[in-house]
Amino acid sequence: MANEKALTTQAEDFSAWYNELVLKAELADYSPVRGCMVIRPYGFRLWELMRDRLDLRFRETGHQNAYFPLFIPQSFLEREAAHVEGFAKEAAIVTHTRLKATPDGKLIPDPDSKLEEPLIVRPTSETIIYEMFAKWVQSYRDLPLLYNQWANVVRWEMRTRLFLRTTEFLWQEGHTAHASHDEAEAEALQMLGVYREFMEGYLAMPVVVGQKSDSEKFAGALRTYTCEAMMQDNRALQNGTSHNLGQNFAKQFALKFASESGAEEFAWNTSWGVSTRMVGGLVMTHGDDKGLVMPPRVAPIQVVIVPIYRKDDEREVVLAKAAEIVAALDGIRTHVDDRDKLTPGAKFFEWEMKGVPFRIEIGPKDIARGQVVLARRIPEGEERKQFLPEAEVLGSMAQRLEEYQQFLLDRARARRDENSHRGVESYDRLREIMEGPGGFVYAGWCGGAECEEKVKDETKATIRCLPFEEFRSDPAPATCLVCGAAATTEAVWAKAY
Amino acid sequence: MANEKALTTQAEDFSAWYNELVLKAELADYSPVRGCMVIRPYGFRLWELMRDRLDLRFRETGHQNAYFPLFIPQSFLEREAAHVEGFAKEAAIVTHTRLKATPDGKLIPDPDSKLEEPLIVRPTSETIIYEMFAKWVQSYRDLPLLYNQWANVVRWEMRTRLFLRTTEFLWQEGHTAHASHDEAEAEALQMLGVYREFMEGYLAMPVVVGQKSDSEKFAGALRTYTCEAMMQDNRALQNGTSHNLGQNFAKQFALKFASESGAEEFAWNTSWGVSTRMVGGLVMTHGDDKGLVMPPRVAPIQVVIVPIYRKDDEREVVLAKAAEIVAALDGIRTHVDDRDKLTPGAKFFEWEMKGVPFRIEIGPKDIARGQVVLARRIPEGEERKQFLPEAEVLGSMAQRLEEYQQFLLDRARARRDENSHRGVESYDRLREIMEGPGGFVYAGWCGGAECEEKVKDETKATIRCLPFEEFRSDPAPATCLVCGAAATTEAVWAKAY
Repeated sequence: MANEKALTTQAEDFSAWYNELVLKAELADYSPVRGCMVIRPYGFRLWELMRDRLDLRFRETGHQNAYFPLFIPQSFLEREAAHVEGFAKEAAIVTHTRLKATPDGKLIPDPDSKLEEPLIVRPTSETIIYEMFAKWVQSYRDLPLLYNQWANVVRWEMRTRLFLRTTEFLWQEGHTAHASHDEAEAEALQMLGVYREFMEGYLAMPVVVGQKSDSEKFAGALRTYTCEAMMQDNRALQNGTSHNLGQNFAKQFALKFASESGAEEFAWNTSWGVSTRMVGGLVMTHGDDKGLVMPPRVAPIQVVIVPIYRKDDEREVVLAKAAEIVAALDGIRTHVDDRDKLTPGAKFFEWEMKGVPFRIEIGPKDIARGQVVLARRIPEGEERKQFLPEAEVLGSMAQRLEEYQQFLLDRARARRDENSHRGVESYDRLREIMEGPGGFVYAGWCGGAECEEKVKDETKATIRCLPFEEFRSDPAPATCLVCGAAATTEAVWAKAY
Repeated sequence: MANEKALTTQAEDFSAWYNELVLKAELADYSPVRGCMVIRPYGFRLWELMRDRLDLRFRETGHQNAYFPLFIPQSFLEREAAHVEGFAKEAAIVTHTRLKATPDGKLIPDPDSKLEEPLIVRPTSETIIYEMFAKWVQSYRDLPLLYNQWANVVRWEMRTRLFLRTTEFLWQEGHTAHASHDEAEAEALQMLGVYREFMEGYLAMPVVVGQKSDSEKFAGALRTYTCEAMMQDNRALQNGTSHNLGQNFAKQFALKFASESGAEEFAWNTSWGVSTRMVGGLVMTHGDDKGLVMPPRVAPIQVVIVPIYRKDDEREVVLAKAAEIVAALDGIRTHVDDRDKLTPGAKFFEWEMKGVPFRIEIGPKDIARGQVVLARRIPEGEERKQFLPEAEVLGSMAQRLEEYQQFLLDRARARRDENSHRGVESYDRLREIMEGPGGFVYAGWCGGAECEEKVKDETKATIRCLPFEEFRSDPAPATCLVCGAAATTEAVWAKAY
């Protein structure tokens, strides 16, 4: 039960607001294992609803789920040079397989059980999956392989934040193998599109999509594409990435196939993933000082019904009406809060904290009048509550949920656009923005790693992406924001989570 | 694609038959990590269908899903003495968190990254979950807590078998906390009932349910209940267990609550789990020398449609009809095998290997006659194929699937009963059975660990359970099969996986 104490406000301390909210809304809790969190039922249901929708889209685009081992032999990680470089410093390493008691009764890893080759708890599964693909693929007829896995992964992060950066997290990782570069490229872009459609259509979270710079791309990829969202503190959140891995892994894992002409060729891989980090993104995109704001399409509870009564006979009548409403709202995720020990006010507080889109209150007088009280988590206008005919509310609820979904997306998009700075031509202006309000800075870039590095070192802003055409400025920036040389591309800079 | 080579028969070598079938039907494959397997899409879809059904029942019985960390601090495992004893010898132990390069360029676990306290990859999650429960529970009003987690777990097994015993496996683990012993007991029995209903109703796998003897119960439990199935080689498979943990863990993890009278009491826990092992059980319950036999309710494909054609214009007509049939069989999991490179015969072989319940063949002549060819994976009578009016087949398919489901359960139950030996009064007879055909031996037991141990040492048979009333013999056995003393209970002995 949420503790009826106000949150630190966003204005006071955005970071404290976030942590308190995740805990109070019972999305997650700290665990006794450093950097690992517990996902509580309310947060896990949210994740399941996200997962189910994505899983459906993966199937519709021809992918199949499978499951690969948790452990990666160390030698596998080592084969792809950039890959091991990217993950060696944050690896949970299994070295022993048995505990034994010392003479003083303490348990220690039994030295006799030491593994010849350490196993790494998967930080990602390219290596072991492509090893298996190599076993399954002989000819071009076996391609493409379109796989997905829902799994836990571990990266030993130094600084962790609930959902945003945890040592263990849940994700999906898509892994595919194709006969040509172009087919792999099309796949990587298709899945980026699936992510974007999900983030905008379900999480009501607008994203800028584009390509990562070389310094920001996935360890082992040819190209990385990304969906970048803007949080309410104007920082960027990388919300999902899709990689064209080229033949980098295929060459290291002998993932070869006989082409139609009979020649032996290396396959082309893609991988793509989104994780429980999206839950954190959802909190920071929509939440306010009263708590979470859940977009209806992924809300564990879309409509909460709070019965109002004093006497036992009232209770019976009101709960019967609540059951009727639940039945009438078939297909909508409802919940009747029939706890006797809590006041209606305490219940309102809790469900607002948990971000439930709509609340219906019903008391004996409402029933007599054929009305209900309806409250939307973010009101449409001034009115916090509306007194409406019951039939009208029941008949319009599906549409109200969709309208609210759209409202949240529009609101988030407007905020994102307000805090996007285009036509920034001087480095001083970028610094000013980063030291001030923050946000996304669209500016020209020469493509040089030095300029990128300088901005990062001096302002903490990184290149979030080289945006796709739809997001580019018109006219295109002519010069590099940093060195003033001719711009080869436009880049989006922001401080990021 | 399944390799068109016959399996080793069950009669030749049951164990080889099983391994070959799991590989050829593409349920799973060996991985490069010792004892870990890869679950391939066909096997994983089967697991998903099992999971979805169980998950629904868990929800219907009031449970919520959540997610707890993969890692258990070593000290947690140590707190419950029987528990650590049970799991210390098969623990994957994480000791380091970083790889570093040696001067000769090799990677080793960085000694500077050694953890102060090793982490154990969860073999089961009682300890960490009850630690969290203790944080969340204050009063009796917070009880019961009814949680479930779908997760991977690791037990470092010495001898592994695909699905039946793997180092890593997938499972669900239910964890609950209650205010009284009786409520916990009722919960443990309820969930055993959910398992039984699922195994019989969905996997068509009859089970004997009962209580484990003390030597076979879960490490840390007060009582363990079990569902025991009989495989076609007459060995038992423990298919799911439910534990009343008493207050053993609550006491070690300070899981206390203020009772209604205000007194501080320790909570009562249960835990219960089923795993991917059930997939192996399904294979060994129903499979035959041609391959898998899938019970329709969990079959990834319930009806496969094989179009038969020679020329391109025939192809078009036949595939159009196949699409019509798929549309007409809405709600049934269908698949059209439209691969051009394979002969119909090769397709029949493959789908029989994969155990698809029904096959519909359609060719141009069938279409002209308004008929289809229908083949059930295990025929009803002599006829391998039936020529039937299309409309009749489409109209009856849902019922045919249900009848086939029931047929498989009846068949498995008849086999189980045929190989159950009741009224066994001499130890010699038990030995004879165990050295011969095997099966379940129902006999009296004095309750003594010595008698249990002697049978195990000499015949490899173990007490699978002390069966619930429904399964007990009438009259009850009077004497212990081993020592001849008065029997305190009836026991079911069998060799087990």
